[in-house]
Amino acid sequence: MTSLGDKGEGHRETTALLGNEDEGSVQTQTKVLNQGSWTQVSCPCCVSEQVEPLVLIQLSDNIQPVTKRWLISLIEVSERDGGAALLAHPGEDECGDVIVVSAPRCTLLRATEDLGLCKKYHNGDMVAFSYNDRDNFSNVDDMQEFLTLAERQYIVKYELDFLRAQKEQKIPGVPESQGVLKARENICQKLEKVGVIKDIFPLHDKQRLTDLCRNWYSGKQIWGQPLDSIQAYFGGTMGFYFSFLDFYTWALVPPAILGLVLTFLLPGGGSGGGVVKEQAGVMEGVVEVDDSPSVSGHMVQAVFSMLWSTLVMEFWKRRSSSLSHHWGLLHLAERFAEPRPGFHGTLGINPVTGRLEPLFPEWQRQLRVGLVSVPLVGFFLGMVVLGMTGFYHGEALAQGFHQESGSLFSGALLYLPSVAHIIYTNMLGNVYRTVAMQLTEWENHREESSFQNHHTTKVLLFTFFNYFAVLFHIAFYKQDLPLLRKRLASLLIVTQLVNQCTEVVVPFIVDRFFSAPQKKQQEDDPNVDKLRAQRSLPTFPGLFAEYIELLVQFGYLSLFSCVYPLTAVLLLLNNVTEIRADAYKICKLFRKPFSAPVSNIGVWQTAFEVLGFLSVMSNCWLLLLSPRVREFCLEGGISGRNIILFAILVEHVLILVKMILAFMIPDEPDWVRIKREQIEFHSMQALGQQNQLPWR
Amino acid sequence: MTSLGDKGEGHRETTALLGNEDEGSVQTQTKVLNQGSWTQVSCPCCVSEQVEPLVLIQLSDNIQPVTKRWLISLIEVSERDGGAALLAHPGEDECGDVIVVSAPRCTLLRATEDLGLCKKYHNGDMVAFSYNDRDNFSNVDDMQEFLTLAERQYIVKYELDFLRAQKEQKIPGVPESQGVLKARENICQKLEKVGVIKDIFPLHDKQRLTDLCRNWYSGKQIWGQPLDSIQAYFGGTMGFYFSFLDFYTWALVPPAILGLVLTFLLPGGGSGGGVVKEQAGVMEGVVEVDDSPSVSGHMVQAVFSMLWSTLVMEFWKRRSSSLSHHWGLLHLAERFAEPRPGFHGTLGINPVTGRLEPLFPEWQRQLRVGLVSVPLVGFFLGMVVLGMTGFYHGEALAQGFHQESGSLFSGALLYLPSVAHIIYTNMLGNVYRTVAMQLTEWENHREESSFQNHHTTKVLLFTFFNYFAVLFHIAFYKQDLPLLRKRLASLLIVTQLVNQCTEVVVPFIVDRFFSAPQKKQQEDDPNVDKLRAQRSLPTFPGLFAEYIELLVQFGYLSLFSCVYPLTAVLLLLNNVTEIRADAYKICKLFRKPFSAPVSNIGVWQTAFEVLGFLSVMSNCWLLLLSPRVREFCLEGGISGRNIILFAILVEHVLILVKMILAFMIPDEPDWVRIKREQIEFHSMQALGQQNQLPWR
Repeated sequence: MTSLGDKGEGHRETTALLGNEDEGSVQTQTKVLNQGSWTQVSCPCCVSEQVEPLVLIQLSDNIQPVTKRWLISLIEVSERDGGAALLAHPGEDECGDVIVVSAPRCTLLRATEDLGLCKKYHNGDMVAFSYNDRDNFSNVDDMQEFLTLAERQYIVKYELDFLRAQKEQKIPGVPESQGVLKARENICQKLEKVGVIKDIFPLHDKQRLTDLCRNWYSGKQIWGQPLDSIQAYFGGTMGFYFSFLDFYTWALVPPAILGLVLTFLLPGGGSGGGVVKEQAGVMEGVVEVDDSPSVSGHMVQAVFSMLWSTLVMEFWKRRSSSLSHHWGLLHLAERFAEPRPGFHGTLGINPVTGRLEPLFPEWQRQLRVGLVSVPLVGFFLGMVVLGMTGFYHGEALAQGFHQESGSLFSGALLYLPSVAHIIYTNMLGNVYRTVAMQLTEWENHREESSFQNHHTTKVLLFTFFNYFAVLFHIAFYKQDLPLLRKRLASLLIVTQLVNQCTEVVVPFIVDRFFSAPQKKQQEDDPNVDKLRAQRSLPTFPGLFAEYIELLVQFGYLSLFSCVYPLTAVLLLLNNVTEIRADAYKICKLFRKPFSAPVSNIGVWQTAFEVLGFLSVMSNCWLLLLSPRVREFCLEGGISGRNIILFAILVEHVLILVKMILAFMIPDEPDWVRIKREQIEFHSMQALGQQNQLPWR
Repeated sequence: MTSLGDKGEGHRETTALLGNEDEGSVQTQTKVLNQGSWTQVSCPCCVSEQVEPLVLIQLSDNIQPVTKRWLISLIEVSERDGGAALLAHPGEDECGDVIVVSAPRCTLLRATEDLGLCKKYHNGDMVAFSYNDRDNFSNVDDMQEFLTLAERQYIVKYELDFLRAQKEQKIPGVPESQGVLKARENICQKLEKVGVIKDIFPLHDKQRLTDLCRNWYSGKQIWGQPLDSIQAYFGGTMGFYFSFLDFYTWALVPPAILGLVLTFLLPGGGSGGGVVKEQAGVMEGVVEVDDSPSVSGHMVQAVFSMLWSTLVMEFWKRRSSSLSHHWGLLHLAERFAEPRPGFHGTLGINPVTGRLEPLFPEWQRQLRVGLVSVPLVGFFLGMVVLGMTGFYHGEALAQGFHQESGSLFSGALLYLPSVAHIIYTNMLGNVYRTVAMQLTEWENHREESSFQNHHTTKVLLFTFFNYFAVLFHIAFYKQDLPLLRKRLASLLIVTQLVNQCTEVVVPFIVDRFFSAPQKKQQEDDPNVDKLRAQRSLPTFPGLFAEYIELLVQFGYLSLFSCVYPLTAVLLLLNNVTEIRADAYKICKLFRKPFSAPVSNIGVWQTAFEVLGFLSVMSNCWLLLLSPRVREFCLEGGISGRNIILFAILVEHVLILVKMILAFMIPDEPDWVRIKREQIEFHSMQALGQQNQLPWR
């Protein structure tokens, strides 16, 4: 293990510089930061001419110097002595309320192995990195090349997150009433709780960011996105989101074409008499909103949308696993790494890895999920339905009362149900968000990804219910297809306008007019304010809202599109701008987020697949409800009972076809499977070749 | 690698003995077998006082001595020289048409590692065996303890199966027109094709078999089965079958109790008026066959059977993975081992293992499955339906004709449809069996388990369709519940009687009266006839028929049981005797089968789960069709349309509940998961600890 030299003094002469900017700014930096400097490195392999500032720890304004010094020393000390083995810089530009953190080569390499990242071997393969075998990996001497920026920053956070108190101790400079660390307590969590640390976030690299922006949204590239650069700069989560957005946008082309053909082309090209009559309905369906599309168009659309949603998700899985291999994220060792910081339990020996860590039995977590979380989520979903029925009931009551009395008061009363429903929904949403977060914390997941998946699932279910309950109510309870079509068209157009506004126009205005003064300051003294400007940005709210937007889109398209064939066209238009808007937002308007290495889009994959199944059911019943189909059947002399039975049969057959299709398309391309099996085979062999199994 | 000494002479003096019988028989054996003897072993660790005869190669009657000598030498030569590194004994008791094969310790140990079998480590854990680390495993010096009999025999077969010609060569003693081996051609396959080898089968061990029988079916143990001994003697496939049979029989107890309660107890104990009235229907449902059970009983049964089938399969998965760990079958390395003998393709380097072997691209196999196999199977299923409708059509025609003419000829004609249908079904079944086998061969699966699964799936689908098409037709097309109930009851009773007859009575008679003369001979000269008696037994037909019987049972129970609540009771009675009958059959009436190590019951698991899903649908629609439910609804003033929609809702909700339940119950117990993760973690670590990755 590398020892990081004598520590804790904070004032030492050094040649290490903050950042690798051009010559002029380097001098300014040295001047500005000369009150403190980077931790001196004694390990020969870790000495480098410049230290790259990776992560900023934002301390409270009134922090005691003794606390800061203590924290810096903790960050610098080797892991054996309970530190994080990182490099710290007090960065006292003005008020001394930050610590800039970087990482030496040894720490980076060891963490790379711990995380299970794959890197390029000398023969070009992607191989799970091994510290012992480091010299056979490409670029292992240049950390800037070997690890992506996002990985380096995540490693710093990873090391900070697992700082634990070696023994019970007081935090220097913090009143004793709050500032006592128990043995093995998580230090960063405690400091955040006590208020010493306000935030920890990764720093932007201005040069790279400018390059990325140029390639991404403000430049020539219209058709593609620089996915590799996005992944390198923002990390796996973001890389997968934009890859999925890209993939999904391309996937919208076929249904958009079909929608256009069904709407505009086919009516002119009809040949037989009955066909022309039916297809005239399609035209009407567009021109007059209160008529439904033709039976054949309807059926083509329904079957197509079922096949399409299956194929999209199956091919995305393949794409996702290729990306995951390409980015070296296929063999993440999260299961075997330290548990997430919030995880608690009785201290014990992990039976798998043999390390001392908190343990929490799996069955107890499952019991909590099954007996508490599931019923509670169900209860909240019930509350949504209750609110909706209450609203309809109230509306009917108010209308009845208004018709009876006709007074001004009763006219005003007409708005009461809507207002009450909006307030109710908002309150319910807020309560639910808190409950969902606390429930998931209480479930006590060991891995961050598991925590995220459970939390996302909870919020997702609720949001989805909120969005679609009304549409389902209109479609299947009221069985009012014209209203559904009207509602869908307006939702699509209105939500898109609103989204474009909030995502493009507002940010642009904010950036141009409100951030302008700051920018001017920055031009005067670029280095002081580089940190300051980033500290003033709001925290990135996460990708949840972006994913849910896609999911709702996908829902409109696959669940109800046969009612309104132009859905795909509108969505395609929306997504082309959405990509740029999201890119701009992420690059300019928020602090850079940390991004854990992940190997897929997680629970969102499942959500899209579930929607695919729902779409089969929905389309079948929409088809059944369509007045044209009923007319068609009555003409053919088929009884209502038989139509329903037929619809059931069609639904079941389609679901079967969908499942066979999903089963037939392998989830990963052959070459990825071979690479994966190669690694499995060789690790099995490695185990066999050891003369004595090492852990016994 | 062990060298097996100078080979091919066949006549050498030796102390090795055939079998470990009591002193008297040993002498006889030595005398009988003194014309030939076991291969002499030069490897010090493989020398043992007695050689256990494991496998018998049955040659053709008119085999040339030169061919036999050549084959023996092949079996004896080390693997490096293209042999199987086994021990051979010419066993020339009378006609010289057998070779008895055994295996030395080194070959057994290396194959154990190749197959990925887990064995007990010195600390009591089950660890994947590693030849380098062999001294740390328990019992490694005593092959009889270390490997089970079935494993030792399978290893012999495994080594024989992978005998390949080193270069193009003539088979000595076989006419040149047929007897030329191409380079790398599979020798045993070729010899079977040419007719030199008639059969290869493992030998029974009389002492162990007697012990096993005593513990299994002819002795005190009434409640359990000696599953470990069964697995040790007959191998994994058989072990899992009997474990499943055992588990499933116990699982029948709750539905049997429910059936009894619903049928006999509840009517007496009814309290409320309406309840009594409804429950009276249950009583009628038993006494008068043409009435249906009550609504509440019906619904209880339907929901119960849905939950039951889910729980049974989920808990079986857990049981199966525990067994698999207990038997050391959790980490089978089939994927990385040699491909199955029938596998062909262009010779190349396997990208995963780096070994020279035939390669066949995965996508091509999938294409064959998807574009040829699936449509062909669909075609045959269509033919079954066609046959059925043809039969009904023909019956109606014949009856009409008979009513019109009323002659003797037309009366005889009434039987024509049935006869034609039976002939048609039989012919179709025979054609299908051939087609299924050839299709699966043509799909060219690399692994034996994959081959078995695809073949089983094909036959299974057809058989299942054959069994249930009529019942589904009666239930959902004719919608004639009384007929369904009658049919179900008679099927249950008749098939059970027939099964008991064919499985217990007939074998018993055969064994007592027809085998009696042989037995007497055996008493005179026990050793000559030990092999001869086994050679005269028929080959074991595999477990397909046994599994299909269970599946059909499970189908009756879960698909239609709400129509006839006593199903479970009848099945329980049947299975208790079934276990003994199967045991008797396998021990006494057939040659011992080879049994590859497997880690679960394979595709049967899926088949049972699919049946669980079908059962939800079936029960919902049976409920809907039940005249009592209709009556009940009409009394409540619910329209037919709404009942159907309600049934659809119930079906979807139940399927959802089933899926959540299946998801919530983990497929393996915690302790198995931990063991599995331990191995994964340590093999990952082993890979990391190597300084230079070995395969580059």
